Amino acid sequence: MSTGHVTLVGGGPGAWDLITLRGMRALQDADVILTDHLGPTDDLGQLCDTADKTVIDVSKLPYGRQVAQEETNRLLVEHARAGRHVVRLKGGDPYVFGRGHEEVEACRAHAIPCAVVPGVTSAISVPAAAGIPVTQRGVVHSFTVVSGHLPPGHPDSLVDWAALARAGGTISVIMGVRNVAAITEALLAAGLPALTPAAVIQEGTTAEQRSVRCTLGTLARTMEEHAISSPAVYVIGDVAGL
Amino acid sequence: MSTGHVTLVGGGPGAWDLITLRGMRALQDADVILTDHLGPTDDLGQLCDTADKTVIDVSKLPYGRQVAQEETNRLLVEHARAGRHVVRLKGGDPYVFGRGHEEVEACRAHAIPCAVVPGVTSAISVPAAAGIPVTQRGVVHSFTVVSGHLPPGHPDSLVDWAALARAGGTISVIMGVRNVAAITEALLAAGLPALTPAAVIQEGTTAEQRSVRCTLGTLARTMEEHAISSPAVYVIGDVAGL
Repeated sequence: MSTGHVTLVGGGPGAWDLITLRGMRALQDADVILTDHLGPTDDLGQLCDTADKTVIDVSKLPYGRQVAQEETNRLLVEHARAGRHVVRLKGGDPYVFGRGHEEVEACRAHAIPCAVVPGVTSAISVPAAAGIPVTQRGVVHSFTVVSGHLPPGHPDSLVDWAALARAGGTISVIMGVRNVAAITEALLAAGLPALTPAAVIQEGTTAEQRSVRCTLGTLARTMEEHAISSPAVYVIGDVAGL
Repeated sequence: MSTGHVTLVGGGPGAWDLITLRGMRALQDADVILTDHLGPTDDLGQLCDTADKTVIDVSKLPYGRQVAQEETNRLLVEHARAGRHVVRLKGGDPYVFGRGHEEVEACRAHAIPCAVVPGVTSAISVPAAAGIPVTQRGVVHSFTVVSGHLPPGHPDSLVDWAALARAGGTISVIMGVRNVAAITEALLAAGLPALTPAAVIQEGTTAEQRSVRCTLGTLARTMEEHAISSPAVYVIGDVAGL
């Protein structure tokens, strides 16, 4: 039996029709699909006939985060070695905090061909769904996408929030609901004005989308008052006031 | 005659099958399509039957850049007012340096309904096409997308390149071919090491794609030696060395 192959597919921010054509075709060609709770998983049937495929929800693997990733890698390799086309359907883009490169490396380590299909990242499209452009001529010429999964000052954090505050661009934070108080405090402490416009969008592009506009100074309180929960994106910068 | 409507569609980085399903459907439904030289314009026929549509290439409008944008806005409004569905097909994502918000505002000013369909941005997908992830766990937790259309220190520049150098994330520069020498000099002057990995990718995701890996210190010279021309993306940061 010949070796199969793996395709990492960026599923986009949530709405099923925001996947790319190439991504949909990979799903249609797949023998095995590994999904998680992000991306268009709930509407997989809109994109392909799942009856003849094995669909595995790797977000429900009963382990801690690290072990789950190793288990996902193991499943990718195991099914590809059995001659199958394995699609790993991910939320957003595979390379935007998606551990995509780790899964590519896992395939390479076993000489399994692996292709990556980019996706529409939530960091840009979720603010857009609330009417907020991450760039605007004459207002901002750069934007930074940050993972907020670690608070500022955490020993494993690789983000210099003070430098980001000075860089002058839009800041789009994903996976940052839990740490919003510490993150906004760090930005304020670095001199970003409290009245800088901000907005938070929960479950953007889906039927459950809700968004609130506020300021950097009120963002943490606003998110608490509105009981914002993951997945959510918050955006800080003048574009949030447009 | 009732008023038409406008859809801004992110066409993705170049390959025609990297548009979203929603974007393709908008093209198929369109009466008028305004395209430019970016995105999947050359392969429009793969995405919809253009025989019954008016296709206008607004990149060839015989004016300077600013006037051309006003003319594009005028065409959007004029055709929508005539009751047509006008699709503005843009490269990448409409809100990533795409003047998308200006076109939305032009429609709003005339009470024309306008929807925005996000796209796969070149800033992420073009490095990905060369095997470079903009994020990687344990290596980098943020990335900044910058327009390099103005050199550092230009009176209209809104980018603090020195702060970006300190922020510690991947830097992805689009529209920066002409100013690469000044941009890399600014980053070096701010303390980013000359040996920081870098890569440049021209016409990423298309059949004409070519890419070169180098370092921050050699990027400008490398691009000159390889005669890199627009459209190109360059990425600076440890991920370019993975």
